Amino acid sequence: MIGIFDSGVGGMTVARAIEKKLPHYRLIYFGDLARTPYGSKSPETIRKYARQNTEFLLSRGAKIILIACNSAASVASDSLREEFSVPIFEVITPAVKKAVANTKNGRIGVIGTRATIKSRIYEQKIQDLRPGFKVFASSCPLLVPLVEEGWLNKRETKMIVRRYLHPLKMKNIDTLVLGCTHYPLLKKLIGPRIGKRVRVIDSSQAIAADLQSFLAENPEVAKILSSGGESKYYVSDVTQAAMETAERIFGRKIELRIGA
Amino acid sequence: MIGIFDSGVGGMTVARAIEKKLPHYRLIYFGDLARTPYGSKSPETIRKYARQNTEFLLSRGAKIILIACNSAASVASDSLREEFSVPIFEVITPAVKKAVANTKNGRIGVIGTRATIKSRIYEQKIQDLRPGFKVFASSCPLLVPLVEEGWLNKRETKMIVRRYLHPLKMKNIDTLVLGCTHYPLLKKLIGPRIGKRVRVIDSSQAIAADLQSFLAENPEVAKILSSGGESKYYVSDVTQAAMETAERIFGRKIELRIGA
Repeated sequence: MIGIFDSGVGGMTVARAIEKKLPHYRLIYFGDLARTPYGSKSPETIRKYARQNTEFLLSRGAKIILIACNSAASVASDSLREEFSVPIFEVITPAVKKAVANTKNGRIGVIGTRATIKSRIYEQKIQDLRPGFKVFASSCPLLVPLVEEGWLNKRETKMIVRRYLHPLKMKNIDTLVLGCTHYPLLKKLIGPRIGKRVRVIDSSQAIAADLQSFLAENPEVAKILSSGGESKYYVSDVTQAAMETAERIFGRKIELRIGA
Repeated sequence: MIGIFDSGVGGMTVARAIEKKLPHYRLIYFGDLARTPYGSKSPETIRKYARQNTEFLLSRGAKIILIACNSAASVASDSLREEFSVPIFEVITPAVKKAVANTKNGRIGVIGTRATIKSRIYEQKIQDLRPGFKVFASSCPLLVPLVEEGWLNKRETKMIVRRYLHPLKMKNIDTLVLGCTHYPLLKKLIGPRIGKRVRVIDSSQAIAADLQSFLAENPEVAKILSSGGESKYYVSDVTQAAMETAERIFGRKIELRIGA
């Protein structure tokens, strides 16, 4: 199975994108709702949680791990790769590659949680690929709670999005990376506010495409993964709000099982 | 020592009120920043955390426990009292008594997190005291993130506060209980928006006064508590934002020690 974890339900945007692109694979998802959110926590705490989540997914039969949470990907990818021998994917690299391929003027914006932005991982990865490129980052800590509230089209949400995007708008970027798996749910609000000429990169789409190429190039991995059967969605806590967000993402009811 | 716990730093408004009213007592505080917030989690998860926090405080020498988190108080007070033999105080009862004593028209509003409001604990406690009173409750899930962001005076915060208070304003209440220990930090915004004729009850003030009376009436408890020495503030995770909120609450730098 393809193991996916996130701090909560945001990573389901990634699971959904994979399900669409690779419908023949089984997913096992873990959302750490009992300790959500990660983006406002320290790197040490996030690393500990990422390790525990990975252990849970492996114990349930995951053969590869996909970190569907930018906060965890930004501070815990390296330590997970050191500790575990299975292939570990994360949402940042595919989005970075897509952004670098897209930009014409070499000016890329990134929005994310405080943990992600503070890690400077996007700057690093973009400048590793193209040292001359300029990266402008803005942390948007209120967007996750707004999404989890379902305030996807409220006036206050629009104002807050505008306030967060304002500094990036001033920088003449032509590409904006949504550096948090909750943000695709706000795409319709973000697009018009950052401006038509800016391409918005959704990391859930990017990672699904990357995973597809990886499996095409590595048939031996694809083979151990494609055993059929239904995908499973585990969470460490269940709430009404989480069930509603999950349903909004998938467009259908999702059974959330308590795990870990 | 007086043990106090909260999901994060919000309960420090209670610690601060006690420090002012009872300066000769030592406090031991625990803020569960690694798992904050509680208000959006399930009753089962909150009860588990409340038990673990209580065990931590007792292991460090607390002789009484004060639940400075409305979400935990609303779903875990009874189970903690069954499990532990030390006196257990919580923030809800003192605020309820104060609200009942204050109202002239018997119409009381309550705002809190989703866990607190869903528990209907304020309705229960108010109607236990005065069955004829009407209680109007509104959950305000975005206020905790807004406080933790330090957005105490932003236009968006004012709009969100107005939106949350609107249904209560229509109900002709004369008393409003701030049913979350983060909300005193928004008192200046809440007051004008709910209207001058509504008295706003801050549970941190109410519990400090209650504790003072309890200690006056129970000198044997007061005696084991008043050993002098400095108060200690433990947290399960440290972040810059938490340190800033703590400093804002106390008006001075607070050393946050990692514990639990």
